[in-house]
Amino acid sequence: MLNNVKIAIDAMGSDYGPSVIVSGAALSMERNPDSKYIFFGDKELIFSETKKHKILENSFEIIGTKETIGPEDKPSQALRKMKNTSMGMSLDYLSKKNVDAVVSAGNTGALMGISRLKVKTLSGILRPAIAATFPHSHGEFVLLDLGANTVCNSENLVQFAIMGTEFAKVVLGKPNPKVAILNIGKEQEKGKEFIHNAAKLINSTYIKNNFIGYIEGNEITKGIADVVVTDGFSGNIALKTAEGVANLCSKYIKSLFTGSLSGKLAYILTKKSLTTLSEKLDPRKRNGALFLGLNGIVIKSHGGADDTSFASAIDIAYEFTQEGVGSKIIKGIHELNNS
Amino acid sequence: MLNNVKIAIDAMGSDYGPSVIVSGAALSMERNPDSKYIFFGDKELIFSETKKHKILENSFEIIGTKETIGPEDKPSQALRKMKNTSMGMSLDYLSKKNVDAVVSAGNTGALMGISRLKVKTLSGILRPAIAATFPHSHGEFVLLDLGANTVCNSENLVQFAIMGTEFAKVVLGKPNPKVAILNIGKEQEKGKEFIHNAAKLINSTYIKNNFIGYIEGNEITKGIADVVVTDGFSGNIALKTAEGVANLCSKYIKSLFTGSLSGKLAYILTKKSLTTLSEKLDPRKRNGALFLGLNGIVIKSHGGADDTSFASAIDIAYEFTQEGVGSKIIKGIHELNNS
Repeated sequence: MLNNVKIAIDAMGSDYGPSVIVSGAALSMERNPDSKYIFFGDKELIFSETKKHKILENSFEIIGTKETIGPEDKPSQALRKMKNTSMGMSLDYLSKKNVDAVVSAGNTGALMGISRLKVKTLSGILRPAIAATFPHSHGEFVLLDLGANTVCNSENLVQFAIMGTEFAKVVLGKPNPKVAILNIGKEQEKGKEFIHNAAKLINSTYIKNNFIGYIEGNEITKGIADVVVTDGFSGNIALKTAEGVANLCSKYIKSLFTGSLSGKLAYILTKKSLTTLSEKLDPRKRNGALFLGLNGIVIKSHGGADDTSFASAIDIAYEFTQEGVGSKIIKGIHELNNS
Repeated sequence: MLNNVKIAIDAMGSDYGPSVIVSGAALSMERNPDSKYIFFGDKELIFSETKKHKILENSFEIIGTKETIGPEDKPSQALRKMKNTSMGMSLDYLSKKNVDAVVSAGNTGALMGISRLKVKTLSGILRPAIAATFPHSHGEFVLLDLGANTVCNSENLVQFAIMGTEFAKVVLGKPNPKVAILNIGKEQEKGKEFIHNAAKLINSTYIKNNFIGYIEGNEITKGIADVVVTDGFSGNIALKTAEGVANLCSKYIKSLFTGSLSGKLAYILTKKSLTTLSEKLDPRKRNGALFLGLNGIVIKSHGGADDTSFASAIDIAYEFTQEGVGSKIIKGIHELNNS
């Protein structure tokens, strides 16, 4: 176990400003008390927020930055002005190994662009991908890319399959994770050409024996595959649609227990399992996705995350620094590129 | 109300053979007793299945066909051999106005290909789309395309927006349905170029005042938009992912009420609302999507539909024949092309 895990936090990336970020950091600190945070952003604002959370006392630094990358900024604009921004500076700290990980709720394209420039991609990796784990009926699976690469070619998908495999080995603890490509049918000719070519190419890599072909959207929650590979556009659609439906289900369930007296009584009877269930369905508990294929740990949080949700993104960053989980993934992908 | 609504049923399209189809037809007949079915497929097999359902007596015909279009057949292969197939013959009957609608659980690409050739697209429509309604937090919305067009251009999306509008007017009963394009962010530069161009083009059509821009996957269940437009690949991913998550939620809820004595008691207390909830979450109750942009009513059922589910696809076909709903949509799109 590392002592004093240092996590750089972009305090300006949230849709709701630094208060949510600092409050989220305080929540995560309760679970991981050996953390040290370096907040990047408006010094005064952040400082006044930290004063609201006693737990943060003596456990943080603030690096003042004057500019911010907005949600409307294109990656090219972000790269031009990054030097004095909270996002740019936090990634600069990571590139210089002054911190163990970076967490940002800011503009995804900008975060990826600056990460690629500062933290660098692993040798041989054409494009990093955004990866996260999701629940299925009896465990979890890895989904990637979640939105870093709107348009992909076959080679990108093959690399996602390999990076996803290394990620799943560590995160799911499975030595031979099963890999599938997300498609709109199982038959060979279904879907797009770059998918067909990717499937052929995967069959010539070391993961070919774990490759189970195509998987459809309704099957990803069945636990057939440990790693589901897709382009960033489709992955983002799948991720967010799942989130929307889970939210809708939670609402339906809530209405079940609030509508009537018998509903309220039923609530008391099932309260315990219900809490587990609502945690399973709560997308906030799974906020935080890893930029996979970089030479360092960069975690992207939802821009609209609340403090509970942002805390979970910091938790994930913390986890990846522990017992070298992050570096194991990095090493796995790296070795394979050199083999 | 029409008397004797004649529905052509492709009895060979199901993954499970004619028994599920005929049994589904019997279920739908209970709800719509003025239906007449014409089954297309293996005459003996179908006949022996109909004998199991007294309700079908004197309410069906069978047109024997010798060949079947398989799930692996490409549209081009399907078009070559369609003449003697259950799918081809049923669409031939529709094109000759011998039936009011066609329902098939067969190969989507083949069904669309033969429909375009036989039933014909409405004048001006470049590509028909698959459309269906889905639940959101306080009603329903229309999603299209669900998989007919794997790759789309801007003009296709604009036509989907217009067809979806006409569909929503009739099906949701809203005079000015709000339209959005499914994308991976709300900012103008997010996503793909053909989406950006489609957004510009929509702003020069008669639906511009109802166009609310981009919508993300997590928002489609919030009821912000009445019509959500997307290419067929992304639409299929969204549709099936939603189905998978809904199934997972149903499982979770079931486990809530079966695990313990208090759970079982809670089940008794909430049984009534629970039934409504499980119906809301049950994708089988929403099986059946319309091929929009054709000169007739063609309903596509899930290939893996069970009898309950196939019955719901027949219900939808029946509905569209009632009070000219189908022809109202067809007329709406048609007029607009000629205006």
